[in-house]
Amino acid sequence: MIVKAASCQLRIDVTDVAGNRARAAEAVTEAARRGARLVVLPELACSGYVFTGPEEARERAEPADGRTVTDWCALSAEYGLVLVGGFCELGEDGHVYNSAVLVDAGEPRAVYRKVHLWDAEKDVFRPGVARPPVVATSVGRVAVMICYDAEFPEWHRLAAQAGAQIIALPTNWPDEGRPPGERPLEVVRVQAGAAANRVFVVAADRCGTERGVSWVGGSAIVGPDGFPLAGPVADPCPELLLADLDPARADRKDLNPRNHVFTDRRPDLY
Amino acid sequence: MIVKAASCQLRIDVTDVAGNRARAAEAVTEAARRGARLVVLPELACSGYVFTGPEEARERAEPADGRTVTDWCALSAEYGLVLVGGFCELGEDGHVYNSAVLVDAGEPRAVYRKVHLWDAEKDVFRPGVARPPVVATSVGRVAVMICYDAEFPEWHRLAAQAGAQIIALPTNWPDEGRPPGERPLEVVRVQAGAAANRVFVVAADRCGTERGVSWVGGSAIVGPDGFPLAGPVADPCPELLLADLDPARADRKDLNPRNHVFTDRRPDLY
Repeated sequence: MIVKAASCQLRIDVTDVAGNRARAAEAVTEAARRGARLVVLPELACSGYVFTGPEEARERAEPADGRTVTDWCALSAEYGLVLVGGFCELGEDGHVYNSAVLVDAGEPRAVYRKVHLWDAEKDVFRPGVARPPVVATSVGRVAVMICYDAEFPEWHRLAAQAGAQIIALPTNWPDEGRPPGERPLEVVRVQAGAAANRVFVVAADRCGTERGVSWVGGSAIVGPDGFPLAGPVADPCPELLLADLDPARADRKDLNPRNHVFTDRRPDLY
Repeated sequence: MIVKAASCQLRIDVTDVAGNRARAAEAVTEAARRGARLVVLPELACSGYVFTGPEEARERAEPADGRTVTDWCALSAEYGLVLVGGFCELGEDGHVYNSAVLVDAGEPRAVYRKVHLWDAEKDVFRPGVARPPVVATSVGRVAVMICYDAEFPEWHRLAAQAGAQIIALPTNWPDEGRPPGERPLEVVRVQAGAAANRVFVVAADRCGTERGVSWVGGSAIVGPDGFPLAGPVADPCPELLLADLDPARADRKDLNPRNHVFTDRRPDLY
């Protein structure tokens, strides 16, 4: 089975939620028109990211059956696709989470709450308490993690060991500079995570300077060998990346007849 | 303290042990002449790699006080440097190991036996049973691992958590091809391992086609931010890479005042 996957790099503006919603919907529609059956949107795709503080984040927060997820379920149903995107979640426990939802066939199948929080997120969000979900969908087994989570090799490993064929990675990668000619290290980490575990990774980054923060714009779709299938964009402009994936490739963890990325591990020594 | 580190990418030939020894000694001498105080040589730097089988490897194997280590101790003493290189070890238990020695001030300080064995190595070598050693040397705390070990993010993590500031990585990276314009994935993994743990990595690869196997020639010296300080060579020719390192940089595991690569980990979930 070949699945066309899309990574939507969007311009997002924390002062224009309605515009963010519209741009996300347009990107999903365009991805669907071009044949995508798995579409990944950035982290906090509708709310924006650079909040003035916890109060603003809480104002933007929505329950998991709120407007953002409802909209995305409608798009998923209309186009028959799996959609993963980040949203600012108001939990039933009253806490605010940096979350991502996976919807399939018009239904939310999993909400993941970001565990590893970056910088001022620690003032704004409650960290998640669960491992990345791995959901059996119409396009294969898809895991969800968010941005800084991907800097922890343990997280890729757990998702892959739980059976993920594809890791969907909504991100907002702040641009902290890099030496000339170097690929963003966020992309390097995604490549290494894919290769170490022989999984696909679909990373959707954002663009659009927000309250003084600019972004890498490093969206990429990476194969189980660690090489990009599409992207990295490495340019902070809107972009739609598309790539054809065979999820079953991610079930083959062997590197050659003698090496296998899981069975060669030495958990007795780790 | 600034330490000049050297990675010696050497032409190695399994049919010319004497020549391999001479080239290794010349490279160390040249590195010393140029001010290096830490010198890393490739995996199996004197024996060669592509053995006809276990018998040939056993013929080449030397005890940890054999010719290779003795030579390297002499070079270490003469030039006052820390030297790490790979050798084919005949253990006191009679088994053959793919090992690397760290010598400092003319004395062997640690012998590491490769744990994660690649392909036909499984026919030839006994796997090691210990974690990478971390040795307090005159140039900082140096860990030793070998080649395929570095494909396991767990191994970088363990070395860094045990206090390593610099990971010395003798390698023989067989060239399995890559898409045009792509950096070798072996280098990508080294970059990710360095960045995930905020350590330096000094990787010394080999060159010289051997019994039909060619090599990446991807030697690199990478900083704690994951970007190369020297290399990657990405060319299968002899090369001497030099870079000035401040080992203390690797003690700072913070990414900003709110993020820290170790304390942000969630071992309760791993």
